[in-house]
Amino acid sequence: MMTSSLHTLDTPAAIIDVPRAMKNIRRMQDHMNALGVAFRPHVKTSKCEQVVLAQLGAGARGITVSTLKEADQFFASGITDILYAVGIAPHRLPHALELRRRGCALTIITDSVVSAREIADFGRAHGEKFPVLIEVDTDGHRSGLHPEGDELLKVAAVLHDGGMEVKGVMTHAGSSYELDTPDALETLAEQERAGCVTAAERVRAAGVPCPVVSVGSTPTALSAKDLRGVTEVRAGVYVFFDLVMHNVGVCAMGDIALSVLTTVIGHQPEKGWLIVDAGWMAMSRDVGTSKQKRDYKYGQVCAIDGTPMAGYLLSGANQEHGIVALEGSADADIVARYPVGTRLRILPNHACATGAQFEKYQALSPDGSVQEWGRFHGW
Amino acid sequence: MMTSSLHTLDTPAAIIDVPRAMKNIRRMQDHMNALGVAFRPHVKTSKCEQVVLAQLGAGARGITVSTLKEADQFFASGITDILYAVGIAPHRLPHALELRRRGCALTIITDSVVSAREIADFGRAHGEKFPVLIEVDTDGHRSGLHPEGDELLKVAAVLHDGGMEVKGVMTHAGSSYELDTPDALETLAEQERAGCVTAAERVRAAGVPCPVVSVGSTPTALSAKDLRGVTEVRAGVYVFFDLVMHNVGVCAMGDIALSVLTTVIGHQPEKGWLIVDAGWMAMSRDVGTSKQKRDYKYGQVCAIDGTPMAGYLLSGANQEHGIVALEGSADADIVARYPVGTRLRILPNHACATGAQFEKYQALSPDGSVQEWGRFHGW
Repeated sequence: MMTSSLHTLDTPAAIIDVPRAMKNIRRMQDHMNALGVAFRPHVKTSKCEQVVLAQLGAGARGITVSTLKEADQFFASGITDILYAVGIAPHRLPHALELRRRGCALTIITDSVVSAREIADFGRAHGEKFPVLIEVDTDGHRSGLHPEGDELLKVAAVLHDGGMEVKGVMTHAGSSYELDTPDALETLAEQERAGCVTAAERVRAAGVPCPVVSVGSTPTALSAKDLRGVTEVRAGVYVFFDLVMHNVGVCAMGDIALSVLTTVIGHQPEKGWLIVDAGWMAMSRDVGTSKQKRDYKYGQVCAIDGTPMAGYLLSGANQEHGIVALEGSADADIVARYPVGTRLRILPNHACATGAQFEKYQALSPDGSVQEWGRFHGW
Repeated sequence: MMTSSLHTLDTPAAIIDVPRAMKNIRRMQDHMNALGVAFRPHVKTSKCEQVVLAQLGAGARGITVSTLKEADQFFASGITDILYAVGIAPHRLPHALELRRRGCALTIITDSVVSAREIADFGRAHGEKFPVLIEVDTDGHRSGLHPEGDELLKVAAVLHDGGMEVKGVMTHAGSSYELDTPDALETLAEQERAGCVTAAERVRAAGVPCPVVSVGSTPTALSAKDLRGVTEVRAGVYVFFDLVMHNVGVCAMGDIALSVLTTVIGHQPEKGWLIVDAGWMAMSRDVGTSKQKRDYKYGQVCAIDGTPMAGYLLSGANQEHGIVALEGSADADIVARYPVGTRLRILPNHACATGAQFEKYQALSPDGSVQEWGRFHGW
């Protein structure tokens, strides 16, 4: 078989810089080890067996998933300790049961009395003691119960009295994506920790065992200085990082391990535009840096070797066309500098969204060879 | 086999309202018939065999694709007349040649002397007379040569003298998506027509046959009153329509044939939020209505029967979580009104982007039954 390289792959292609990804994995695991907590990576970012096995190899204990399809796929890869970290819809309980009956140590989550009752009723009816984490809201971001509220204890009681296993509490301080200073991040990490620990202590004080205290988001995980009372941390996007995370301040541009390889297919010389074959179908429609301190439009353009080209952004995107332009003033020499056929790489705003646009990754080794790593999508 | 319905499908799911799609197909084809031009649908919107066969059944002549993967897939479905409407990158010429050698009547496009030379050199080297459309820019939107410029004639000469078939000229007035009045749309449709016809006449005057004059975008196609000199029209999103097209003014809300079925998985009662299982992974990150006259955020929420719920929008989206809220003031009764397990449908901003998030569609018949229609993605 001929070895593929960045010069021979069809474009657009999703390139994983393997040494960077491994460095990112190591960095997070080392930080978690230093803080004395277990680490449970969120695999929704990569949906890729090779990446997840590397995370487990580095020391992760179990995985976090955002869909039961991810649970199915990674259970088929031999991973049994799986947390499904989206509040379970009652119609999915049969699927969760089926996974557990096949030997998957699946944990589910809930944040309402109604759902807790459905879980308990279904579990009892089928002789299954579901392990459940109760979701807590520590930053007003999305889901979860107030750590100091009555509902938390009601949910714990409904599950416990209903014969289910209250395995613990969990939270996700997703508002960390909106911050961009180390102090603010450290403060939110502490708020996330304190809120979740408070919730656990209240559940325990009510007489319900609550061993697990699970927190995390990439920015808070990397910014936490002290995780007393926490038993595990979850994070996903750190494995690749992206321009949003760079703006948040938790990675350097040179840590971003996912890029889109693209080919120049035309020009608009008077406008100083390159037309490339990476549009929004390749990059996704995510413009997550548009409200951050540095707006990268649809992505930062790099040379084929990964060196960022200062000021060149993917300034516009149609379905299969991208427009590359130099910020500020048009590049009058852009046609000569980047003729048709030139290959470039684009760093994405949001690795989870860009990765999801592709059926497979191309894993780039330091020797310049690439190999396919599968990924799945859908539900 | 048990018949599926909107009440039993797993969520999120991409629902095609079949009667609406058929009505949209019929409407466009009737309009093209009335204007006396051939219609060549852009299949990048659906990437679905059943939809495309319905378009051909209604009278379409050939298809338009945005990737060679689409060409491969639809050629495998028995469709031979295919226009690959993205400027061809030289490294894709062997793939195009292989399709033609297998019997696919593939036409390619270009808008530069450099690419035209590559096509001619490659074609001659392999004894293949590629049919080529020259891309013309009629609205400054993206790619294409000026209809009155010298480059147009140079490209025509390079192809013609190089032994290729200058099949014609083509343009896409994509800036039509930014308009929202019938007058402005009709004016742009005329500008698109006139520019493309001018280009064809200039090529012919230079002694190069140029039979095809191909124009189109959904808004201009539906707004054109006269297409003298045009031989074919291309459009894609009209088959499903979406909220962006509704804002542009070329469809009613009730024409939108694609929606995402979702389940309520939780609440934040104090905020008046529903948490649903359709986040940006289901809807895409497209917020194309955010700068239009009506901002629908991530989508318009409807009851399971498709009736829009006035003021309820998908106001926020994380990967697998969506936040539904009533605009203006919080709905204090939202928990009672839409309990956990309630099924809703969300109309998307951009059907091409939302469809691409799914592995398959669920085609909804008037009797309430659904069946799977496949779709593909990637390159």
